[in-house]
This record gives sequence, structure tokens and C-alpha cells, in this order.
Amino acid sequence: MSPKGRRGLVLVFTGNGKGKTTAALGTLFRAWGRDFRACVIQFLKAETGSWGEVKAAQRLGIEWHKTGDGFTWTSKDIDETKAKALHGWELAKQKIASGEYDLIILDEFTYPLAFGWLDTVEVIEWLRAHKPAEMHLIITGRDAPPLLIEYADLVTEMREVKHPFAIGVKAQVGIEY
Amino acid sequence: MSPKGRRGLVLVFTGNGKGKTTAALGTLFRAWGRDFRACVIQFLKAETGSWGEVKAAQRLGIEWHKTGDGFTWTSKDIDETKAKALHGWELAKQKIASGEYDLIILDEFTYPLAFGWLDTVEVIEWLRAHKPAEMHLIITGRDAPPLLIEYADLVTEMREVKHPFAIGVKAQVGIEY
Repeated sequence: MSPKGRRGLVLVFTGNGKGKTTAALGTLFRAWGRDFRACVIQFLKAETGSWGEVKAAQRLGIEWHKTGDGFTWTSKDIDETKAKALHGWELAKQKIASGEYDLIILDEFTYPLAFGWLDTVEVIEWLRAHKPAEMHLIITGRDAPPLLIEYADLVTEMREVKHPFAIGVKAQVGIEY
Repeated sequence: MSPKGRRGLVLVFTGNGKGKTTAALGTLFRAWGRDFRACVIQFLKAETGSWGEVKAAQRLGIEWHKTGDGFTWTSKDIDETKAKALHGWELAKQKIASGEYDLIILDEFTYPLAFGWLDTVEVIEWLRAHKPAEMHLIITGRDAPPLLIEYADLVTEMREVKHPFAIGVKAQVGIEY
């Protein structure tokens, strides 16, 4: 820990409920208010998606990378989806090791780990060796592997209590995407 | 529901874990990217606090009201704290009923309900009668009353799995405030 008490935290937002990516975005909003240098890398989400958060980030000049071609459950070519995820991790390593950021968000990064596309042990060993001590890292997604939870400083499970899709309400623009 | 399928959702982020206010801020970020007219009313939090999210909102011209004088557990005068919370609800009613917003966030609003300062039944009856059908409403805070959960469309419980305060790490600027 630095003399000022600053320590780069590793935050994990996992679980089946809504609010994981959203909480990461809230941290991004807060960090932007503090002039943090931030970078978002989204895994799996389609490169072509036009999301409220992407529009906001563009306007604010926040670096944002979409490395996916759609969620796996809509993927037409799983090898392509996997290859893009692995490419996303290479990009993430480059950004993390650069030391140029105060906050990096790896959105939906639990999936390449949970699916076994990346080895969780190797990923965590790499992070332990290369993540700058003062850089904050946020990882979101369901099914965070136990080893990732062990490595993280702060873990919240977003538990679904009630979801409007269950009563036939479609996803609402500006709120859910 | 309007012809376009837009329906104002009531979202509740509750539970003991980190990420409730943060998820509300993430929705605010997303909504701002969609040019939504938004308003945040914070209950209990001190008027004088200088938070990353407040700085960000100021820069973006997002309407933001802090109606509290500090959390109750640090409050020196509980009657004053309560009076401010009741005032906050009057302000919230005025903003909600105005019809001028696409999204209103009542941050930490579960506390005045859970403490019994406001009657949950009356609050929900008021909302059912006055909340514009297309306006989204987000309420955050621990201990959301069961009636509020019943009223809400989407409820996520943020469950604490791991918290760095437990291992002696202090709150980190730009991440937690």
C-alpha cells in the first residue's frame, strides 16, 4: 500500500441478478468524476451493439473496447467467439501492464474463465505479477470461479430477487442497455 | 405500456453488499448516454460530502440533490436527520409528479422506510397514483421492506461475499466514493 493509503482493489461483481455490469459502470462514472484514467474491455458482447453506456463513454472520451461477437448463447460460430475472447485477454494484458490506467474494467470476463477458454490459475498468476499495485480492476459476469473470488479484494453477488422479463416486460432502453 | 413498448420500471437494489448505489449510478451513466432527463435525490448522505459521483454529475449537468446530514449511525441529532429525510421525500414527490424526468433515483431511500419514518404503504400508494407510467424509478439501500419488493419490477439483492474493510483496507477514493 502506498503512503497515501491508495491500493488498487480487485472487485468482482458476479451472480445471476441484474446490476453487475451496471455497478461496474457506476464505478466508472465515479472514477471519471475523479479524473481517473479508465479503460473498459467488454468480452462476448457484440462489436456492433449500440448501448447507452457506449454512447456515454464515447461522449466522455473514455476508452472502450468491445472484443466479442455476441453472447455465446446467440453465437453462430463458437470457435470465432472463443478466439475473440482470447484476443480480448491479450488486449487486456497489454492495457493492464502498460501502467497507464487507474481503473480497468473487464466486463463479462468471468465467462472465458468459467468456460475454460482461459486457465484461471494462469490468469491470476499473470495478474499477481503484472497488475500495477495502485490500479483498480473490476471483473464482472456470472459464475466467477472460486480462485478468482479468492484473489479478489471485494466480491458482491448480485442475486436476482425479481426480474421483469419474468412477467413479460421487454428490456428497457437506457435502463438495461 | 406505450405503443413503443416503453414502460417505466421500478428497480430496487438492496442487500448488505457493495454495489447498490453504484448500480444506480451505472444506470444513470447509461441513461445519460441516451439523453434521458434524470434526477438523483440522496437520502441521509451528508450535504457537504464531496463524492466522485457528485463531481461527475455536476460536470454533466445532471440534477442532484443531497437531502441528508450524514448517515444515521453518525448522526448527532436524529430528529434533524429524520426531518431532512421527510423533506427529501417531499422533494422526491414534487420531482416524480412533475413528469419532467425519464429517470429518478432515490438513493438510500429504503432507510426512511425501514426506520418507520415514512409509512411504506402510503409511499407506495402515492407512487402508484402519481409516478408517470413511462418514468423509471430506482430505489437503493439495505433492508428494502417486503411491500416495496412486491411493488418493484426488478429487485436485485447485492450480497456481500468479500469486503476489503474486513482485512483492514480503507475505502478507496474514486472507487467507493
